[in-house]
Amino acid sequence: MEYTFSKSVDALSSSAVREILKLTQGNQVLSLAGGLPAEDSFPIQEMREAFNRAFDLGAKSLQYGLTDGYIPLREWVASRMKQKHMNVGLDNMLLTTGSQQAVDLLCRVYLDEGDVVLVENPTYLAAVQLFQFRGIRAIPVEGDSEGMDLEDLAKKIAQYRPKMVYVIPTFANPTGKVWSLERRQGLLAQCKANNILILEDDPYGEIQFDGEASYRSIFSLDEHPTNSCVVYTSTFSKIVAPGLRTGWAIGDQRVISMMVKAKQAVDLQSSTIDQIALHELLSRFDLESHIEKIRASYKERMEWMNELLLAQSWDGVQWEKPRGGMFLWVNLPADVDAEKLLARSVQEGVAFVPGKPFYAAEPQHNTMRLNYTLLNREDTQLAIARLGKAFTEYSKSLVTQ
Amino acid sequence: MEYTFSKSVDALSSSAVREILKLTQGNQVLSLAGGLPAEDSFPIQEMREAFNRAFDLGAKSLQYGLTDGYIPLREWVASRMKQKHMNVGLDNMLLTTGSQQAVDLLCRVYLDEGDVVLVENPTYLAAVQLFQFRGIRAIPVEGDSEGMDLEDLAKKIAQYRPKMVYVIPTFANPTGKVWSLERRQGLLAQCKANNILILEDDPYGEIQFDGEASYRSIFSLDEHPTNSCVVYTSTFSKIVAPGLRTGWAIGDQRVISMMVKAKQAVDLQSSTIDQIALHELLSRFDLESHIEKIRASYKERMEWMNELLLAQSWDGVQWEKPRGGMFLWVNLPADVDAEKLLARSVQEGVAFVPGKPFYAAEPQHNTMRLNYTLLNREDTQLAIARLGKAFTEYSKSLVTQ
Repeated sequence: MEYTFSKSVDALSSSAVREILKLTQGNQVLSLAGGLPAEDSFPIQEMREAFNRAFDLGAKSLQYGLTDGYIPLREWVASRMKQKHMNVGLDNMLLTTGSQQAVDLLCRVYLDEGDVVLVENPTYLAAVQLFQFRGIRAIPVEGDSEGMDLEDLAKKIAQYRPKMVYVIPTFANPTGKVWSLERRQGLLAQCKANNILILEDDPYGEIQFDGEASYRSIFSLDEHPTNSCVVYTSTFSKIVAPGLRTGWAIGDQRVISMMVKAKQAVDLQSSTIDQIALHELLSRFDLESHIEKIRASYKERMEWMNELLLAQSWDGVQWEKPRGGMFLWVNLPADVDAEKLLARSVQEGVAFVPGKPFYAAEPQHNTMRLNYTLLNREDTQLAIARLGKAFTEYSKSLVTQ
Repeated sequence: MEYTFSKSVDALSSSAVREILKLTQGNQVLSLAGGLPAEDSFPIQEMREAFNRAFDLGAKSLQYGLTDGYIPLREWVASRMKQKHMNVGLDNMLLTTGSQQAVDLLCRVYLDEGDVVLVENPTYLAAVQLFQFRGIRAIPVEGDSEGMDLEDLAKKIAQYRPKMVYVIPTFANPTGKVWSLERRQGLLAQCKANNILILEDDPYGEIQFDGEASYRSIFSLDEHPTNSCVVYTSTFSKIVAPGLRTGWAIGDQRVISMMVKAKQAVDLQSSTIDQIALHELLSRFDLESHIEKIRASYKERMEWMNELLLAQSWDGVQWEKPRGGMFLWVNLPADVDAEKLLARSVQEGVAFVPGKPFYAAEPQHNTMRLNYTLLNREDTQLAIARLGKAFTEYSKSLVTQ
C-alpha cells in the first residue's frame, strides 16, 4: 500500500524544534518550553466534588448532549461575559474543545484556501500552523509594545484584501504584549470599514498582574452581538484546568450557528460530563478568589524568573517584564540562532521554544519564549542556571567561529 | 458587517429533517430518530468511582496530555484489539473525540477537494455530510444484504478512481446489515490492487445479537499494521457511554502520525480526565459481562419493536430483523414520501429519520430508520402506535390525492 496524503499535510511536516523537544520527554530536562499552567493551581478537590455532583444528576451526564454545549454552562459563561461588557445570548455562543477548536471551526466556515489572514508579528504558533494546514495565507502586520501598527495594518489591508485578522490583544502569546485602547479601537475601525472579521483570541486575559488596569476586549468595543465584526474566544484552561478541554466562542448568531454545524460534522460535541462538572464547579466555586491566587502566584514566578535572568547579566539580551499571561519573550544578540541555542540547552538539561515558528513570514532567529508558570522556584532557578551555561558556551562557540 | 462564509458551508445548510426534528425538542414527541444508547445501560456508579480514582492520581488528570491520547488507555485498546485479531502498537493508534473525529481527521490528511470516496448505498449520514463539507465526492456503490456488490465496486473504481472507500461492514447505520466474509475479502482485494484506502467504521460491532457468529473486521483480514490498506475506527460510545466522547483509530503508523499532527492543529487533544477515568473504569470493570447485558437488552428491544411493527400489518411495508446494532431499516410502499410521513408523525407525537439523507446520490424517498435502543418498552409501544396512526392517515391522504 502506498499512501498519498492530501496537499494540506505539507503544512504538518515535523519541525526541527518539535524533534528537539521530543528528546526532552521522560528525562531530566527542565522545560520552559510549553504553555502549561502550574499544577498546584488546579482545584482538584473541588473538581472531584463537582464530578460527583454531575453523577448525582443521573444518566444524562454520560449521554449525548447538544453540539453547541451544555445550556447551564453557556448561561454561566454569558453571565461572566456580561461582567466584561460583552452582552450575548445563548445563540451567540458555542462551547468547544479548548479555544484551539474555536479557531479551527471559524477557519472552516469562514475561510477558503488562498484567503488571507493578517496576524501579529510574532503570533501564536499553533494558529499559524492551523492557517497553513487549511491553505490560508497568514500575513504579518508590524507592531510595537502598544499593538499592531495601524499604518502598516492599513497598508496590508489595501495590499492583501484579507478576510480576517487574528489577534491576541491581551498578554499575547508569545510576547506577553497588551494592546492599548487606541490600537484596539483603530483595528476595529479599519476592519469595520473594510468588512473584515476579527478573531480575538483571549486565553490569558484573566492572568493579569497589575490589579487596577482594565483592558477592554475588542468584542466589547464593537456593536454586538448582532453585526459584530469580532468573534471572541476564550477558555477555562488557564483559570480552572486545561485537561477538561473546554473553551467557548461568541459572536453574531449567523457566524456561531455555522460554527455549530461545522462542529456537528467534525466531532458531534465535546465531552458532556466535563461540561456538566465544570458548571457544577462554577456554581459553587469562588472563581474570583481562585483567579486572584493564580495571578499572585504567576506574578511571583514571573518576577523570580526576571530576577534570575537579570542576575545572568548576559550581554545584549533584552526582554520586557510582562503585565500578565504565561510567557517571557527574550531578544538575544543578533548573531544568536535560538534553535542552535536550544540544541545546546537540551544537552544542559533545559528546554524553551525558539522564536522562529511564531513568525508567519520572515522569522527573527534571535528570539525565544520562556514559560514561567509550570516550574517551581527551585526548578526555575536550576533551569535558568543551565540556560546560562548553554548561552555562555554557545556564545564562546560564536566567537571562535 | 456583512459575513461571507467559506464555500464549504454550502454543505452545512439546514435540512428539512433537521428543522422538523428541532420541533421535537423539549416536548412530548417520542423519538425513534436518534442513535442514542439506552441510559439504563450506563455504568454510572462504576464511572463515578473511576473518576474518583482518576482524581487520586493527582494534578496530571487535569493537565494537558498527549495529542495521541493517554498511554494506559491506548495500551488497553491495543490489548482489546488483539483479542479481535488486530495486532497494533501504540504508534498505530490515536484516541479521538468520538469516532466521528477519526473520520474527519483522516479526511483532512488523506483527501483533497474533488477526491472521490466510495460509500455504501445508503450509508451513515454524518459521514456523507462530512465528506461534502470537505468538498469530497461521495459515490454510492450498490449492494445487497451481504454487503457491497463487488461487480459494481469494480465498475465504480474504474470509473471514478477513488482514493478511499468508507464502509460500516458490521451492523451498518442505517441498514443494520452485516457483510459476509466473502464481500469483506473482495473489497479488500480490489482496494489493495488499486491502492485505495479503506476506512472501516465499526461503532456497533460489539452490539451483536447472535452470540456465536464471528464477524472479522476487514482490518484484521489485511496485513497490518504496517502497509495496512485499512484504517479502522471504533468508540466507547456504545459499550460504555457516549458522553465521554472517546473513540480511537488504528492503522499504519505513517497514516496515524499524520492524523495526530492534524489533531494537534485542530484541538490539541481530547479531554485528559475522561481518558484517565475511562482507563480506571476498564482496568477494574467486567466489560464482557456489561456488553452481554447491553446485547441482551438491545436484542429484547429490537424484538419488541419488530413485534409491534408486525402487529400493525401495514400494507407493503418491509424490513429485515437486524442481527445487531441500534437500528431497524424500513422500506415503505413506493408512493410513500418518508419526509411527509415524518411531518405527519411529529403531529402525532413520534419522530424518526427519513432515509433520504443517508443516500450519497439518488435517494429512495420511501425508507426510514427507526432506533430501538433509547425508549423503554411502554414508550416504544406508544411510539409505534402513533406511527401507525400517522401512517394510516398519510396513506389515506395518498389515496384521496
